[in-house]
Amino acid sequence: MAKELNPAVAVVMGSDSDFEVMKPCFETLKEFGISYEARVISAHRTPALATAFASEAQSRGLKLIIAGAGAAAHLAGVIAACTTLPVIGVPISASSLQGFDALLSTVMMPAGVPVATVALNKMGAKNAAILAVQMLALSDAKLATKLIEYKEQLKNKVVLKNENLAKRLEEIE
Amino acid sequence: MAKELNPAVAVVMGSDSDFEVMKPCFETLKEFGISYEARVISAHRTPALATAFASEAQSRGLKLIIAGAGAAAHLAGVIAACTTLPVIGVPISASSLQGFDALLSTVMMPAGVPVATVALNKMGAKNAAILAVQMLALSDAKLATKLIEYKEQLKNKVVLKNENLAKRLEEIE
Amino acid sequence: MAKELNPAVAVVMGSDSDFEVMKPCFETLKEFGISYEARVISAHRTPALATAFASEAQSRGLKLIIAGAGAAAHLAGVIAACTTLPVIGVPISASSLQGFDALLSTVMMPAGVPVATVALNKMGAKNAAILAVQMLALSDAKLATKLIEYKEQLKNKVVLKNENLAKRLEEIE
Amino acid sequence: MAKELNPAVAVVMGSDSDFEVMKPCFETLKEFGISYEARVISAHRTPALATAFASEAQSRGLKLIIAGAGAAAHLAGVIAACTTLPVIGVPISASSLQGFDALLSTVMMPAGVPVATVALNKMGAKNAAILAVQMLALSDAKLATKLIEYKEQLKNKVVLKNENLAKRLEEIE
Amino acid sequence: MAKELNPAVAVVMGSDSDFEVMKPCFETLKEFGISYEARVISAHRTPALATAFASEAQSRGLKLIIAGAGAAAHLAGVIAACTTLPVIGVPISASSLQGFDALLSTVMMPAGVPVATVALNKMGAKNAAILAVQMLALSDAKLATKLIEYKEQLKNKVVLKNENLAKRLEEIE
Amino acid sequence: MAKELNPAVAVVMGSDSDFEVMKPCFETLKEFGISYEARVISAHRTPALATAFASEAQSRGLKLIIAGAGAAAHLAGVIAACTTLPVIGVPISASSLQGFDALLSTVMMPAGVPVATVALNKMGAKNAAILAVQMLALSDAKLATKLIEYKEQLKNKVVLKNENLAKRLEEIE
Amino acid sequence: MAKELNPAVAVVMGSDSDFEVMKPCFETLKEFGISYEARVISAHRTPALATAFASEAQSRGLKLIIAGAGAAAHLAGVIAACTTLPVIGVPISASSLQGFDALLSTVMMPAGVPVATVALNKMGAKNAAILAVQMLALSDAKLATKLIEYKEQLKNKVVLKNENLAKRLEEIE
Amino acid sequence: MAKELNPAVAVVMGSDSDFEVMKPCFETLKEFGISYEARVISAHRTPALATAFASEAQSRGLKLIIAGAGAAAHLAGVIAACTTLPVIGVPISASSLQGFDALLSTVMMPAGVPVATVALNKMGAKNAAILAVQMLALSDAKLATKLIEYKEQLKNKVVLKNENLAKRLEEIE
Repeated sequence: MAKELNPAVAVVMGSDSDFEVMKPCFETLKEFGISYEARVISAHRTPALATAFASEAQSRGLKLIIAGAGAAAHLAGVIAACTTLPVIGVPISASSLQGFDALLSTVMMPAGVPVATVALNKMGAKNAAILAVQMLALSDAKLATKLIEYKEQLKNKVVLKNENLAKRLEEIE
Repeated sequence: MAKELNPAVAVVMGSDSDFEVMKPCFETLKEFGISYEARVISAHRTPALATAFASEAQSRGLKLIIAGAGAAAHLAGVIAACTTLPVIGVPISASSLQGFDALLSTVMMPAGVPVATVALNKMGAKNAAILAVQMLALSDAKLATKLIEYKEQLKNKVVLKNENLAKRLEEIE
Repeated sequence: MAKELNPAVAVVMGSDSDFEVMKPCFETLKEFGISYEARVISAHRTPALATAFASEAQSRGLKLIIAGAGAAAHLAGVIAACTTLPVIGVPISASSLQGFDALLSTVMMPAGVPVATVALNKMGAKNAAILAVQMLALSDAKLATKLIEYKEQLKNKVVLKNENLAKRLEEIE
Repeated sequence: MAKELNPAVAVVMGSDSDFEVMKPCFETLKEFGISYEARVISAHRTPALATAFASEAQSRGLKLIIAGAGAAAHLAGVIAACTTLPVIGVPISASSLQGFDALLSTVMMPAGVPVATVALNKMGAKNAAILAVQMLALSDAKLATKLIEYKEQLKNKVVLKNENLAKRLEEIE
Repeated sequence: MAKELNPAVAVVMGSDSDFEVMKPCFETLKEFGISYEARVISAHRTPALATAFASEAQSRGLKLIIAGAGAAAHLAGVIAACTTLPVIGVPISASSLQGFDALLSTVMMPAGVPVATVALNKMGAKNAAILAVQMLALSDAKLATKLIEYKEQLKNKVVLKNENLAKRLEEIE
Repeated sequence: MAKELNPAVAVVMGSDSDFEVMKPCFETLKEFGISYEARVISAHRTPALATAFASEAQSRGLKLIIAGAGAAAHLAGVIAACTTLPVIGVPISASSLQGFDALLSTVMMPAGVPVATVALNKMGAKNAAILAVQMLALSDAKLATKLIEYKEQLKNKVVLKNENLAKRLEEIE
Repeated sequence: MAKELNPAVAVVMGSDSDFEVMKPCFETLKEFGISYEARVISAHRTPALATAFASEAQSRGLKLIIAGAGAAAHLAGVIAACTTLPVIGVPISASSLQGFDALLSTVMMPAGVPVATVALNKMGAKNAAILAVQMLALSDAKLATKLIEYKEQLKNKVVLKNENLAKRLEEIE
Repeated sequence: MAKELNPAVAVVMGSDSDFEVMKPCFETLKEFGISYEARVISAHRTPALATAFASEAQSRGLKLIIAGAGAAAHLAGVIAACTTLPVIGVPISASSLQGFDALLSTVMMPAGVPVATVALNKMGAKNAAILAVQMLALSDAKLATKLIEYKEQLKNKVVLKNENLAKRLEEIE
């Protein structure tokens, strides 16, 4: 279902080396049957591409954009500057500062140009996908139902985790 | 236009003392003609209310929820736990730690339960409203147009700012 | 003695993957002969369970609750919101931010709803157990005596450590 | 009721200049009818007093100790080293580092010697008192009932806060 | 001398409200007789302007660009992405995070696209001007001489400061 | 007694504007009858002076040097590089980063060249003087006695503080 | 071409153990055909050398100096104090504080003595070289052209990265 | 020469597990021929020992005390509270917070009770020894001479480092 001609979501990242961190984002979009396209776009190495991509996103039929970047993570902000579509930012820990730099660069956007920031790294990559689905579900009843089922699964997995915990506790007693 | 019977957006905050910080959120929603309701809900003082509110949000016709909170800012996360609607979190600087506590408490959500986090304080309060409008605009062409006009205005205000800068520069020369 | 029908202490954690960090907590409770129950409860994936568990804790005969969680560590706070029993929070380092997120999320609770926060990770897990014993000992003279013996042991272990240090110093001289 | 011959709780602080921050602690203890004594004890200026005070606390009939201190806030830890009673630490922001120093000095105690740490400053001072009441209520049914009433009041105050919010919202509309 | 038709330096800032912080930059450029132009350019509100400005900077005869911005301070990075001229970044403390956000956003640029970052706020604004002069002096012997004189003055001012210190010390003795 | 021809201690600071912060240092040296000299020396504006001063310190009969500086506080380190006398560093909060910069710049000296770092600001300024007296007292029995008296006074002041606390507590009861 | 008799750039570092981090700096200078010299100079172990080196830099024909250092990274500042040539600082993560110490020590220079600070570690080492080339290109048209070609290459490499990303995405689908 | 009957220096640490970090301290004291004794003393597990040790230090003939500790590193402060001898604190990174906790707990001592704090970990352990030698050298001309020789050696080692750097540079060219 993914990678259609007219995908709903674009996932961009500053480098192909960010792929491993962003993987849960793709997997989760696929799980929900959301069509997506993926691109390496650098706010600093390909600024014209970043601007053009963001400016044309709406007319190309994209609904929203997920941007993952590390260090001075300007990518999400630069894209948000050029579109009125929702932009979700995934800060990535890519320097010795452990993601403090990417988190603050992504979230502290000035009034008028928000970036919907999620947690650092894989946790955030997955949540960017869920947040995207939540936005799309505002006008898609089937997706809204899938989200409710997904939430139910999250809950059910805790049952398994409790069984596992019970086993681990036997180590002690 | 705001405060209709079936508002699209709920803005909740941990205390009425957060109102001053959240004010730009209300003003911006009003500017875009978005109907909203506002409530003080505390994740820690009124947990049942928080849970009930979030659980019923979708069936009450709400489209999304904006939550502002400070210190150990659990409010947005607690609400996100009980709904599949998008939840936007506004961290508020309310302790001596200058908002580092509220920012990390709001943004570092575990996989499966995102909070769309915006900047700290008033800047974030305004951006929460814009982000809400961006989400609603995904299925509302008029809102989408308004957002484009709003972005144009942001740009135009910079002309005025340049005029002001020119005056200030005369102080030097 | 542990895992009785009516345990005094509940130890909850956000995921079974937190078990390794929480293990010293279980071992120490066992060492003091404190009955406990253990559960995976997620503030965000199983909010209803968290609320129900906390609300019923007192009537089920629990005396206090130890909650370990990482990242946006809301678990201890969410439980404290729904019970008047003492809640001890163990922040766990589970993101690239090295526990700063979990520590601040756990300790910076608003007025009226305290979480007794201990150190990060294993050190804190062990201390959560000791703190629990200290609370229970307020009305249990035998436990109070055991605590005094335990403190004596801590002191005595330093004798061994000094012997070990003496050996290591020979490396230099 | 407070300041009896045999108080249940001792509140100690590093300097009389900490009184203003610790005031909510005293007020809340009084509200719950908990007898207390108060002292200025400095871990660094009166170490012998700190040690003697802590060592004799249990035999003097004290049930628990609340210690507030700023900067290199060693007071709670030094007291915890000399007693097996529960020690509650209130970190106070008293240097240019905004309490990061006091928070880390108070909470990061080594295995074996916990300090039950609450939030920084007044918020924490109040919560130290609540936490103390929660501990005492483990063997005092009347106190346990008072805590439940107190929690109810916290909830009810939110009704008033909502009324206030409604008024403030009229500023906008 | 400043504000010529073909200025050597452009000073850009995210908002006219940054002027007070950037003032020492203008004053110092003027002191060295460096021609400059000044503009409000926002990376997020006027992205096309930022890109166009930076792309044309070299052909317009500019030698280097100084950019001051706060919060998620992307301005210097966005400009550096579109020019090969040296870009000097002045991080400004404009949120509750005291400039940590602006500093990290400005300095942690990815390989290939440097921003020469100076200190936060006024101290950095002045130093941005000095650094600009140092760069221009590489091919301007007169400027190089002025810099040596300026360094001499810095040294001489310390004589005055010592006299002032001597007076203040009399307060004590 | 202070400001003799051959003072034992030199107190240097980066600017005369640091005097107010360093004042407790001078007052405490005077209280102990330690002769001192004071100078504004800037590691960055008067590097030759800093080097010369430090290099000659020992031959001029100085026993130790106290250096206060803010921001990128290199002064203590630069002096320590040029002398084998003990150097005490007082980090001063002089930027928006609240002293984190000065503290880390002063304390994190490389192996071989220590700076004895004390607390930030006035607290540290006073302690720099005490530490200086402690070092001088190693070979001055009278000073050693004075230090013991001083410690006694610190203890005695706590009696007064307790009286003051008692009065403040009456506000509550 | 590098290591000529009269090199344009000096690269200094606090220890030979910093070489691995600084390597991209040398490689990039070589790529641009910039002559350089390299030296271990310690601000704290060889202060006289640091001062002499910096003081003579201009008369020896050097155009600018790149300084890499970790922990209390004073090297760039100490050199900037003794020359009016541009000094580029590369903070290196060399303690458990992950480079926060080196970054703040390098960038927070006082008014009058700038250090052009780049990102931490290898990323910054490479960018120090690019920044140096940008400064030299102000009076060297060939270098200016090379920089434009280099920027083009950065852009083109993104094409390859996109091809790589496409392959990685097949893992998911 | 070390470990005499009447050692000049005591080196204490919170646990024998700190030995590896403190090893450079012992080696350096030995290198300078300073007699020392070493002990594991825990501020929290052996508070009476800590107090007794510190109180008797002066009468036992000790000249100064070096204390290494991690996490809520109270050891140096607790010892400084009970003696007027100089106390040197070595903060050790022993939790997930990378030493920020130990550094702040050690350095931010209140007015009247200084701890001479050095850098984190091995770097600081070595410098604690050097600082101790500097203090002892105030009244020991031979030691003073040794320190000057040591400083000379530090300088000379840089010659070797430059030779090594030269070799490494050949990798590039």
